[in-house]
Amino acid sequence: MSKVDLKMLATQLNVSVSTVSKALRDSHEIGEATKKRILEKAKELGYRPNPYASYMRQQKSKTIALIIPELNNSFFLQVINGAESIAGEKDYHLLIYITHEEVEKEMSIIKHLQNGRVDGILMAVALTTKDYTHLEECIENELPIVFFDRVCHEIETTKIVTDDFASAFTATEHLIKNGCRNIAYLSISDHLSIGIKRFNGYLEALNKYDIVFKEENVLKGSNSETENYSSIKTLLSRGDKIDGIFASVERFALSTYSVCKELNLTIPDDIKVICFSNLYTADFLSPSLSTVNQPAFEMGATAAETLFKHLDKKKIQLANENIVIKSTLMARESSIRN
Amino acid sequence: MSKVDLKMLATQLNVSVSTVSKALRDSHEIGEATKKRILEKAKELGYRPNPYASYMRQQKSKTIALIIPELNNSFFLQVINGAESIAGEKDYHLLIYITHEEVEKEMSIIKHLQNGRVDGILMAVALTTKDYTHLEECIENELPIVFFDRVCHEIETTKIVTDDFASAFTATEHLIKNGCRNIAYLSISDHLSIGIKRFNGYLEALNKYDIVFKEENVLKGSNSETENYSSIKTLLSRGDKIDGIFASVERFALSTYSVCKELNLTIPDDIKVICFSNLYTADFLSPSLSTVNQPAFEMGATAAETLFKHLDKKKIQLANENIVIKSTLMARESSIRN
Repeated sequence: MSKVDLKMLATQLNVSVSTVSKALRDSHEIGEATKKRILEKAKELGYRPNPYASYMRQQKSKTIALIIPELNNSFFLQVINGAESIAGEKDYHLLIYITHEEVEKEMSIIKHLQNGRVDGILMAVALTTKDYTHLEECIENELPIVFFDRVCHEIETTKIVTDDFASAFTATEHLIKNGCRNIAYLSISDHLSIGIKRFNGYLEALNKYDIVFKEENVLKGSNSETENYSSIKTLLSRGDKIDGIFASVERFALSTYSVCKELNLTIPDDIKVICFSNLYTADFLSPSLSTVNQPAFEMGATAAETLFKHLDKKKIQLANENIVIKSTLMARESSIRN
Repeated sequence: MSKVDLKMLATQLNVSVSTVSKALRDSHEIGEATKKRILEKAKELGYRPNPYASYMRQQKSKTIALIIPELNNSFFLQVINGAESIAGEKDYHLLIYITHEEVEKEMSIIKHLQNGRVDGILMAVALTTKDYTHLEECIENELPIVFFDRVCHEIETTKIVTDDFASAFTATEHLIKNGCRNIAYLSISDHLSIGIKRFNGYLEALNKYDIVFKEENVLKGSNSETENYSSIKTLLSRGDKIDGIFASVERFALSTYSVCKELNLTIPDDIKVICFSNLYTADFLSPSLSTVNQPAFEMGATAAETLFKHLDKKKIQLANENIVIKSTLMARESSIRN
């Protein structure tokens, strides 16, 4: 028989992994009857949390991990700097891991970290992460996780986010106020927390200004720049001229710049562009790029501070809450009506 | 009495740390008499390499570390991707550490890694690293280091570099061929390996075209963007008009763009700019930025491959050699005569 884990218990009991995890941690959220049923099944199957991991964890490693999905994104670079500034103050080392948007890599890293290597984890989940069992188990094994940016709302812990919905609304409204009526949304994902919120902000702005939402104006980007380039090209070559682009991440905006060059479309005259980005060359681009600037440094610093507060008082569970830090719209040439 | 280390032995014997290190490893480079003198002193003072570190090291961690000085530099981002691609193939984890150009941080990281946490290190040294004892000791403790980009020639190991001298010569020559006669060199450092080679390439090109070298045309950049901005502004405000900038790292070129905007200088009409850079937005800048593109991905991958080759055959010492991978000049609008 294979090792009994949270997932096996959940399957056998026909409840979610999250419910099993909470019951085993004696959470008030789970009813007594359910709790009893889960504990009995856990005993019956011989489930136990990894004792080696738990033992190792008592010996402080003075190290925390930061898990990010990609590096070619100025947002994550600033998050790293923010987290490092706090880790440095605390005399902790910060290990940086990159999942390259692959859930397998993420699972391997999470497993690798459960041997006492680190005291806690700061992370933004990968694009392909849809099942959170490995994260539930990590917390179950007493290795705390603080999420930032791309969070798992299903998991009880602290999440550091920006006002994705409101910022996406403001960015889309900004395009509308500058004359756009046929705005495309370049989406990073239709299941990631940030993807959903930014999409909803876009929808809400269209709605406010009585602009009919068109399914075909939403382009789901991929991890391949070549694919993105090609699908943006198709989008901008359509008969019904797209006149505004709201990109959920900066690399889609840069691909848009390339495509416009090839198609001889002028930004902002033919098409206006705005995106979520912390690109430090935004001012120098031709034309300069309008951005929604996320408080990336602050988000990294707050995530680290939250984790350290928890580590300092070992007993307290990380509060199940969202800490929201606001983004700022930086209108530049790419989105302003001439 | 404090712990006996390589430095103390070196001081007492009035030889270099490197000589002590080589003698203790029974290198053929050290004469028998010197070797004997060093071994006797080591015995007398009770020197021994860290046994715990050595013991731990036998247990493979399946992890290597990559130590870089800064993150806000597209060169290092691509190095990370290159090293990761090889580590992934080998099923190794790659830990990323950032020194923020501080030697104290670098020493702390190197010390932190000598507890079996990693099997080997890939690194580019910090700007402020002038004494290499911590690196000598690391190798002495059987934790191998492969250097890339910013290397320590004093240390016997493999170094992955680009053709810094030739590339700097070509970049400077390119400016001269485009009409520049009063070219400033923005230097990252006057003691780092890459700083010296790039400076010499610049000198050689001036020399070839009979342009007199002016001391005041060399600006030593600092780690502070504000300071760099201010000294570039002073440089470009001088009476004898600077007509070309060769920047040894990309952030100096970006600061130059900002200063030119403030001073109403037009690139490339008033001043031409070229720099070492792997900036992925170089094409989109206004004007597009001419760069010396380093083979960053290949350098990271080669550094990792070299380390793994060594780890696979435990007994063989890393060859004391330079592996040179060539850079490419990408001339764009910022340096071309109209």
